[in-house]
Amino acid sequence: MSVTPTLLQRIGTQLPIIQAPMTGSDTPALAAAVSQSGGLGSLGCGARSPVAMREAAAAVRAATDRPFAMNLFVLDTPSPGAAEVQAALERLAPLYERFQLPLQTPSAWCQDFAAQFETLLELRPAVASFTFGLLTSDHVRHLHGAGSLVVGTATTVAEALAWQNVGADAVVASGVEGGGHRGTFLSDWEGSQISTMALVPACVDALAIPVIAAGGIMDGRGIRAALALGAQAVQMGTAFLACPESALVPAWREAMARADGGDTRLTRVYSGRWARGIVNTMMRELLPHEAVLPPYPIQNALMGPVRRAAAKAGDGEHMALWAGQGVGQTRAMPAAELMRTLARESDA
Amino acid sequence: MSVTPTLLQRIGTQLPIIQAPMTGSDTPALAAAVSQSGGLGSLGCGARSPVAMREAAAAVRAATDRPFAMNLFVLDTPSPGAAEVQAALERLAPLYERFQLPLQTPSAWCQDFAAQFETLLELRPAVASFTFGLLTSDHVRHLHGAGSLVVGTATTVAEALAWQNVGADAVVASGVEGGGHRGTFLSDWEGSQISTMALVPACVDALAIPVIAAGGIMDGRGIRAALALGAQAVQMGTAFLACPESALVPAWREAMARADGGDTRLTRVYSGRWARGIVNTMMRELLPHEAVLPPYPIQNALMGPVRRAAAKAGDGEHMALWAGQGVGQTRAMPAAELMRTLARESDA
Repeated sequence: MSVTPTLLQRIGTQLPIIQAPMTGSDTPALAAAVSQSGGLGSLGCGARSPVAMREAAAAVRAATDRPFAMNLFVLDTPSPGAAEVQAALERLAPLYERFQLPLQTPSAWCQDFAAQFETLLELRPAVASFTFGLLTSDHVRHLHGAGSLVVGTATTVAEALAWQNVGADAVVASGVEGGGHRGTFLSDWEGSQISTMALVPACVDALAIPVIAAGGIMDGRGIRAALALGAQAVQMGTAFLACPESALVPAWREAMARADGGDTRLTRVYSGRWARGIVNTMMRELLPHEAVLPPYPIQNALMGPVRRAAAKAGDGEHMALWAGQGVGQTRAMPAAELMRTLARESDA
Repeated sequence: MSVTPTLLQRIGTQLPIIQAPMTGSDTPALAAAVSQSGGLGSLGCGARSPVAMREAAAAVRAATDRPFAMNLFVLDTPSPGAAEVQAALERLAPLYERFQLPLQTPSAWCQDFAAQFETLLELRPAVASFTFGLLTSDHVRHLHGAGSLVVGTATTVAEALAWQNVGADAVVASGVEGGGHRGTFLSDWEGSQISTMALVPACVDALAIPVIAAGGIMDGRGIRAALALGAQAVQMGTAFLACPESALVPAWREAMARADGGDTRLTRVYSGRWARGIVNTMMRELLPHEAVLPPYPIQNALMGPVRRAAAKAGDGEHMALWAGQGVGQTRAMPAAELMRTLARESDA
């Protein structure tokens, strides 16, 4: 009798815990610590160039021989009109002025997806995960040929089915309570704000492939809850964001330590895509423009200089403080200690 | 050694399952079937007069001697200005016209809370639960004197703490994925859209009294998940709405059978209070006015004639189709059979 291996067996991890890819906030040290502890660390590579992807993967591999994941944004490079860009830039003039930045167009809107994808095939991570869009079956076949399992991100059952249809090995069912960007790519925004508690069982019922639960999962209670809902694993972002190995500046850590679930909002102001973070001055100042901001990645690229300047200045009121609704339950401990704690709690 | 009794022991139920009060949609038959099956049935009495409350309680008691709950809206009767009412009425003129209803002000905006509360003390249900506002400690003391346990509804940790502070015996942590009205009374709207997965553990950590999880819980998986998060019981609305014992008209049942989590929205258009239901023509037509509609219970009372006429006409496009994000997982079975199914599934 043949037995279908579980998702964990296929990946080769012991614990059903994936550290979420957090582009700009994860580090090779964080991913390596999670993988070394029996979970699956991830490198959010959406904003990493091929060179940076190679460096990050090498750094993880220098620290552990355990499996890890690399994540890309499935994204076309946009060609916005000059007038649209100028209007969007001028909307940000007060922020640029605050940090004495020249009001100019960035040299690129985003990384080139095709080049990143080629690099992923070359690097052959155990898991290749994707957000913001859908791969073709050809893409998936190439990744399988390279030895990578393919994990898609879905915010609705329709998106989860789309990933199953192109041959993904598993789908992250990403609840609306999660921090950072929503992965929505197929459904309209209003119809894709579904919570983990509702989305996970709906995906489990609709799919033949394993479901990974994400959104609001902070500790062993959340892990056991997600597994009870039918998920084979969980993906946790905010919980790992508080680890010292993450790339967060102190002002962001301090804001997280003060915040609870009621302090986060979903907004387009950071990047032109819906994303959840802690309310601060910058969010409040940009909210009146939310409906007219250009789409991702244009607004995201225009905000880049502000984000970097605020981070450098330690100014938590003018950066994107990504965090999920579970932010009140974060524990600022080293990733290996957090993994031991999660393993103990979820066994209980 | 004295052992603190659990919430279930105090209520006197066997199963950690509360049928949510669903004003206008629950029935004595539904509540009695749930209580008779070892859960806690509820009568949503927000819109019931004292006479109707007595009739409903008597009907439950004629069918079962098990404990049941009665729920009230904690609400002041408003005194809106004539101009505000006229403007609000005129906004609804197309809907009134569609059903050939006279465009006139209703005879009352809501039930009188003080009279309802006196009736509750007289009826002495095992559990008295409340939404939309906070009781005083005196209220709670009177209910305890009458032998009722007091359960408050919270959408944030701050609201849950407020209920604990006035002496409530337990708090329903009501996640944003749930159907019908949000109970928010203390926090601002933007800060109170917290999901079950995030809200329940946060309340469990903050409170000394038991937490009841609500929002998105549809089956044994959801029950086990909620208990894993630290809840002592669950409160389920949408799941019981699909039972033949509920008061739903066929058009609403049919809409639920077709819908999934992506088909519901939170909106103020039904009643002036944020509530979740299935998108239909009426919701889309009223959405452009959402920001200017009068508050609950004024908009609710003005919509009353339309709701009743649409229900009578079997017109599912012009009624409030309350439902939570778990609507895709409903099972249209008699309440006793659903309770047996939930008991079996949550034991698994």
